[in-house]
Amino acid sequence: MPTERKSPDAARRSRPARQAILTAALDLAAEVGYRRLSIEGIAARAGTGKQTIYRWWPSKGAVLFDALLALSENEVGEVGGQDGAAGLPDTGDLAADLKLVLAATVEELNNPRYSEPMRALTVEILENAELAATYRERLDQPVREMKKRRLLAAVAAGQLDPGTDLDLAIDLIWGPLQNRWLFREGPLTSAFTDALVDTALSGLAQASRRRTET
Amino acid sequence: MPTERKSPDAARRSRPARQAILTAALDLAAEVGYRRLSIEGIAARAGTGKQTIYRWWPSKGAVLFDALLALSENEVGEVGGQDGAAGLPDTGDLAADLKLVLAATVEELNNPRYSEPMRALTVEILENAELAATYRERLDQPVREMKKRRLLAAVAAGQLDPGTDLDLAIDLIWGPLQNRWLFREGPLTSAFTDALVDTALSGLAQASRRRTET
Repeated sequence: MPTERKSPDAARRSRPARQAILTAALDLAAEVGYRRLSIEGIAARAGTGKQTIYRWWPSKGAVLFDALLALSENEVGEVGGQDGAAGLPDTGDLAADLKLVLAATVEELNNPRYSEPMRALTVEILENAELAATYRERLDQPVREMKKRRLLAAVAAGQLDPGTDLDLAIDLIWGPLQNRWLFREGPLTSAFTDALVDTALSGLAQASRRRTET
Repeated sequence: MPTERKSPDAARRSRPARQAILTAALDLAAEVGYRRLSIEGIAARAGTGKQTIYRWWPSKGAVLFDALLALSENEVGEVGGQDGAAGLPDTGDLAADLKLVLAATVEELNNPRYSEPMRALTVEILENAELAATYRERLDQPVREMKKRRLLAAVAAGQLDPGTDLDLAIDLIWGPLQNRWLFREGPLTSAFTDALVDTALSGLAQASRRRTET
């Protein structure tokens, strides 16, 4: 999390170093695991000094976090992966859009270059309250808001009942995938996420219908 | 995981020591966290020698694991909590039974004495492949089989379609709760789990209906 303010020129000059550090952090996290990842190791791999890293980031967790943010913006920005600024796709067909998004997430989670650092960071987030707060603010909340905006658009388009509990909806659609990945409880395939989306949306529609009838 | 075989008398004599060790492990895990938990600390708190602990368990993770198993057997055995030997309740009403089970889990997860050691163990399982294998064999798989047996009974009773994907069903019913707890993503209440059960079961019923129609 860079805190230093720089002139535009300085920022442009430092971009290659910054990118080298993020790449080194991802490579090393996948190779040696989070516990053995160190600022020293990242600096050596990136060909920079430790001080350069400490000037921009307070900890190895912060470096890895930014590396993952950058990676997911590059790889799945087009389907609205983890990038809080982008939106989820909206073709007017909620089920199709969610299937596309979840299939892209499945692809990410099956890619060790993404999933191993992400797993390492997840462990760190579960243990480190400070990093957890940053994670919540910078990634979890923006992504949740983005999901909510897509569901609200579906409500406006008449594809989802206005009475739908959107937090429950998000938990139902994304929770099982995250959980299956984290605990390696089953294969991660688009067949699984397609069925997940269909079943969750059917259930949400039925729940609303039941509410209307009573 | 005790490996030593003992005569029934020796086993009876050692029961208080074993219980003291399990209690000490839980207390200390809640107080100091998993990282700072040590066999030395557990031995001191339990008033036993380190060697007594090492005679029965290979690591602090193994002690904590048995402590959590014993705790959940005591506290929620009657509603089939985490005890692989018991079954989930079967009153003939699947939704009501699942709501009861999930409400008991919510109560457990809102109890720091259970949830903090469980969170610590979860982190350890995510990082430690050996403990993960033991966890899968001794807790995760038996519990998953127990859930499947309850769902199969519901199929037999005509409450669930025979074509239901039981793995998807388990992920849909339990995944969102586990995920919300682990990432502290929302309040853990029985209102949430009741809605979760209703929505998941509706969705599963609809998915089967759709399959029959096509």
